[in-house]
Amino acid sequence: MNEIRTVEASEHVGEVARFRGWLHNLRRLGGVSFVFLRDGWGIIQAVTENDADLAPVADLALGSVVALTGLIVANAQAPGGLELQQPKLEVITSVHESAPLPLSKRRLNAALPTLLDHAVVANRHPARRAVFRLGAGVMAGFRAALTARHFTEIQTPKIVASATESGANVFKLDYFGRPAFLAQSPQFYKQIMVGVFERVFEVGPVFRAEPHDTVRHVNEYVSLDVEFGFIEDHFTVMRLLRDVLAGIFEQLTTQYNSELTLLEATLPIILPEIPHILFSDAQELILARHGVDTRGEPDLSPQDERWLGEWAMAEYGSDFLFVCGYPMVKRPFYTHPDPARPAYSNSFDLLFRGTELVTGGQRLHRYEDYLAALDRARLPHEPFETYLEAFRYGMPPHGGFAIGLERLLMQLLALPNLRLATLFPRDLNRVAP
Amino acid sequence: MNEIRTVEASEHVGEVARFRGWLHNLRRLGGVSFVFLRDGWGIIQAVTENDADLAPVADLALGSVVALTGLIVANAQAPGGLELQQPKLEVITSVHESAPLPLSKRRLNAALPTLLDHAVVANRHPARRAVFRLGAGVMAGFRAALTARHFTEIQTPKIVASATESGANVFKLDYFGRPAFLAQSPQFYKQIMVGVFERVFEVGPVFRAEPHDTVRHVNEYVSLDVEFGFIEDHFTVMRLLRDVLAGIFEQLTTQYNSELTLLEATLPIILPEIPHILFSDAQELILARHGVDTRGEPDLSPQDERWLGEWAMAEYGSDFLFVCGYPMVKRPFYTHPDPARPAYSNSFDLLFRGTELVTGGQRLHRYEDYLAALDRARLPHEPFETYLEAFRYGMPPHGGFAIGLERLLMQLLALPNLRLATLFPRDLNRVAP
Repeated sequence: MNEIRTVEASEHVGEVARFRGWLHNLRRLGGVSFVFLRDGWGIIQAVTENDADLAPVADLALGSVVALTGLIVANAQAPGGLELQQPKLEVITSVHESAPLPLSKRRLNAALPTLLDHAVVANRHPARRAVFRLGAGVMAGFRAALTARHFTEIQTPKIVASATESGANVFKLDYFGRPAFLAQSPQFYKQIMVGVFERVFEVGPVFRAEPHDTVRHVNEYVSLDVEFGFIEDHFTVMRLLRDVLAGIFEQLTTQYNSELTLLEATLPIILPEIPHILFSDAQELILARHGVDTRGEPDLSPQDERWLGEWAMAEYGSDFLFVCGYPMVKRPFYTHPDPARPAYSNSFDLLFRGTELVTGGQRLHRYEDYLAALDRARLPHEPFETYLEAFRYGMPPHGGFAIGLERLLMQLLALPNLRLATLFPRDLNRVAP
Repeated sequence: MNEIRTVEASEHVGEVARFRGWLHNLRRLGGVSFVFLRDGWGIIQAVTENDADLAPVADLALGSVVALTGLIVANAQAPGGLELQQPKLEVITSVHESAPLPLSKRRLNAALPTLLDHAVVANRHPARRAVFRLGAGVMAGFRAALTARHFTEIQTPKIVASATESGANVFKLDYFGRPAFLAQSPQFYKQIMVGVFERVFEVGPVFRAEPHDTVRHVNEYVSLDVEFGFIEDHFTVMRLLRDVLAGIFEQLTTQYNSELTLLEATLPIILPEIPHILFSDAQELILARHGVDTRGEPDLSPQDERWLGEWAMAEYGSDFLFVCGYPMVKRPFYTHPDPARPAYSNSFDLLFRGTELVTGGQRLHRYEDYLAALDRARLPHEPFETYLEAFRYGMPPHGGFAIGLERLLMQLLALPNLRLATLFPRDLNRVAP
């Protein structure tokens, strides 16, 4: 007996095959019964006029784990153009309670807290799991784009002796009786590793103890980090970022089409060169177009980002916009200044459909510059001693960026809340499931 | 000007090319000077009889970041069979202090504490970084083997509300004023995700607060986790594990040959079917061969593992040996018993050259069995409520395994200490660099 996945059925029309999965739905129409089986990849429908065929699951709830054997027949009316005839059901694991969410409905209409409280089950819904399968595609596309460019993958420690940028907003830990912290980014380590491999990337968790309660923040997320040496300035970094994003969307287009279709996702327009605007020009633009004077603010607000996103689409037909040259005052101490305008930085944010998706830039690379920058920031040298060792013994001009995986999914899929792009979100109030 | 990586030089013989990297070494032999440049991938040698060519670096320390331009010439005497002639050096970043470790020596002879204290610099040594580049190869091979088998990659949360197996040996965290823990494994989440994707894998950090001080333990490491549904029993899992390991070593053979050669690594013999032995038979074997009676012990000691490793090589010519059927008493509550011998489990360890590399097995999958198992283990149900939800609403027979990335590297490369296979190790005494 041929055991296949539901998504392989179309290659086996006219054959009898066995499928294994979850009893997704049962429907009766006139004298005809429809059985829907969901496996890890898709759904297949079986049809019968014989009630006895359903006897094995007659007393069971949906969600029971079953094997379903039948003859694969093309039927233009059936979902996916295929159905199983002469079905034979075997029960593998019985379920006796209905799930707390209606998984068999095409749309999972449930309030956000219900979705999150029952994420263990909710993520089984085809429309929910498609989000996270796309997440796997983003990771795969990210790695493929970088591996092709001779980057080496690293995994850096998440328990660290000192906070990356400042003592605020890090989770504290009892490390064998001593204080330690959870890494809020692999920033220091990825820079250190440029000294080893020149070009590195990492896919891993980052932890932010920020007491935000917004639709676009969670306290643990997956960061796609890149850092590389021998750059000219932040524009070298921006060009790589553009190509990596293009690689990610290429991966989704070629390998994840059924998920994109199911979620009615529109792939973004990514121009050969993503347009950029200076931070100060962005503020002038907002004043001119919207009459709001943000000049003097060291950062963009969510509303500013939305306006700029609209402008980029109107002006360039671009879903992406780089904002460059943020004031040094709001950027971390390792940021490289713009040599021509030292109060501004060689850094950037990338807006994707009006929301910040990526932060990046050029970093300082001279040992002396680090000592001066720490002094300017009134930070002691001692906690940074091992980080400084990288620069003391030779580092090239370098830079990098970090893409938030969940942010990318949220913006790609127009989800109203970042939590819906997060497998098991952690926020101010939630540390389970 | 063609800017290339050192490892690409052989494709450009007869051309002038520019390389960028670190001043790795300078040597003078008779009237001839040799300049060695190290980039992120290899080393190239330049040769000159003209002292003026070295003037740019005359006052600098090794480790300075430079560009080196020259004519690529084949020379059988030179390392790698190539050298650069008519070299031109440009300084990118000056270094004025010698590194705390002799990076230019072929072998990095330094005591372990020195290597670890100065890992930031030590990992730049070709023989050190080759270890971690092989690590990248292991991750790539692992993912490729699983993706080809329709597994979906997941990233599960590392901050969790309750400990996976017991309250002991987990790091505690202050989560916005409430206690939380660092995940000691993605075990619960990968099982939960079998309910979503059927077949899942994860590459990520795990955290063990075990106060071990041995050569084969660290407190944070990279775990290569797999879990999948619709298995027969633990032998289904063992067969997959065998194929995944074969995929990893295939990846290293085809893509990481220069690292394997540099480290004089001998790839393991991995038979089409890895031999297995029952735990109880292993104890009898140890008694018969070594006169040591370990019967009644619920686990194998490191010495036991070494003896079994020697036996597997002598008996089967295998670098790997499965030990199956551990007593239930030492296995976690979710372990599936052997239906024929309920005091023993459908679980296994995989020994690689006499050291435990992988733990895995079949898990319970019926909701009722979980409730009973928690009661037997005298564990309350409440902390496991969301985990239990997966089983309450239908789970297939399933199982999986976890490979320790650093353990694999340690055994493959015959390193005397797991810390040497760890980028920046965390142990009882060390949380930096």
